[in-house]
Amino acid sequence: MTQAQNPFNVVFVLFDNVTQLNFTGPAQFLCRMPGAKVHVAAASLDPVMTDVGFGIMPTVTFEDCPQSDLLCVPGGLGVAPALSDIQLIDFVGQQASDAQWITSVCTGAFILGQAGLLQGRRATTHWGFTSLLPMVGAVHEDARTVFDGNIVTAGGVTSGIDFALTIVAHLHGEDVARSLQLNFEYDPAPPFAGGTPATSPQHIVQAMQSRFYDDRAAEMEKALRG
Amino acid sequence: MTQAQNPFNVVFVLFDNVTQLNFTGPAQFLCRMPGAKVHVAAASLDPVMTDVGFGIMPTVTFEDCPQSDLLCVPGGLGVAPALSDIQLIDFVGQQASDAQWITSVCTGAFILGQAGLLQGRRATTHWGFTSLLPMVGAVHEDARTVFDGNIVTAGGVTSGIDFALTIVAHLHGEDVARSLQLNFEYDPAPPFAGGTPATSPQHIVQAMQSRFYDDRAAEMEKALRG
Repeated sequence: MTQAQNPFNVVFVLFDNVTQLNFTGPAQFLCRMPGAKVHVAAASLDPVMTDVGFGIMPTVTFEDCPQSDLLCVPGGLGVAPALSDIQLIDFVGQQASDAQWITSVCTGAFILGQAGLLQGRRATTHWGFTSLLPMVGAVHEDARTVFDGNIVTAGGVTSGIDFALTIVAHLHGEDVARSLQLNFEYDPAPPFAGGTPATSPQHIVQAMQSRFYDDRAAEMEKALRG
Repeated sequence: MTQAQNPFNVVFVLFDNVTQLNFTGPAQFLCRMPGAKVHVAAASLDPVMTDVGFGIMPTVTFEDCPQSDLLCVPGGLGVAPALSDIQLIDFVGQQASDAQWITSVCTGAFILGQAGLLQGRRATTHWGFTSLLPMVGAVHEDARTVFDGNIVTAGGVTSGIDFALTIVAHLHGEDVARSLQLNFEYDPAPPFAGGTPATSPQHIVQAMQSRFYDDRAAEMEKALRG
């Protein structure tokens, strides 16, 4: 068990059109980790628009953000345009150089990748984009949360909650993680089995790919090629 | 399967010190429900401070909010003070009178209760507060999501995600719900079994009650007595 510093700075990086649960899920759990302080960093203190249509107020600008102990980059449809945002990519690279943990949820992995942080690393991302991980030098590992040294990547959206609990357990032990799980009544009971291409009916997987993810993956590929 | 109107107005009610995942979890899923439009309503358009320490921008004031088809009240430590907020309780009561679905997550149930909406209803709330449900005329049902007519109440925090998927399945059928589950990669894998008093180690349940929930339940009881 690693002893957390006081405060243990958890920094989430926000950008327009973030899929907000990528951030709000793990933020809910990590903010109650003993000694943790959550910072929400963006280019300015103006509200950042989420995919749901409401804005989130950053707590700090990139310029004024303290050094993170745990850096977390969420994903979403805003990732592809964010890949050419030099200020954002520079911020991630600078923060990562001294962070204890460098993490992403969903397609946030490609922002880590664009900052050069996934070269030769095992990693994961949202299932619709895993085939693109080699473009940033990463090797896809088929798991909900992937640890490779101090780089931790999580799969799509809701995997951020399991990622956060796994981090809490790693840093503070099982009892603290279980306490947070009880606190947030995390005894999930989805109405259907599913949630991954392997566990979902194939007509649903195929429909989502042809209607949505094939085009989104093409956009991401184009953005990664610059 | 009920056919949704176009738009199907989903209204979340925000107040200071909301436990943000109560809102952001179901909002993530419900915003992608066919025909749905999510509104985030508060007393003013000023940012609403969440328990995590960042603000959320409402999209509409109570005064200008359209009639909800689905009204959802999240919970959190801000609920006890909100019970004496006449403007908020009146808004909930007025919206509820014409809503197709009246819902809550976590201790949001007590705001429904304060508005007189749970009299004689089966309902649930966060496990730390279920014993108080009779104070608002409700009968506790031990389930993660409880349907009683058009009143749907969910348990603590993360149960809001299962609640949202259950609503989507009810309104739009299994394929749409499964598609959203795949979209958000909701194949939960908590690192430990647990998340309820029955499934958590008893020393953890007892510690959380004595250190936190006994006092919070006493506060809520006092607030409910007015």
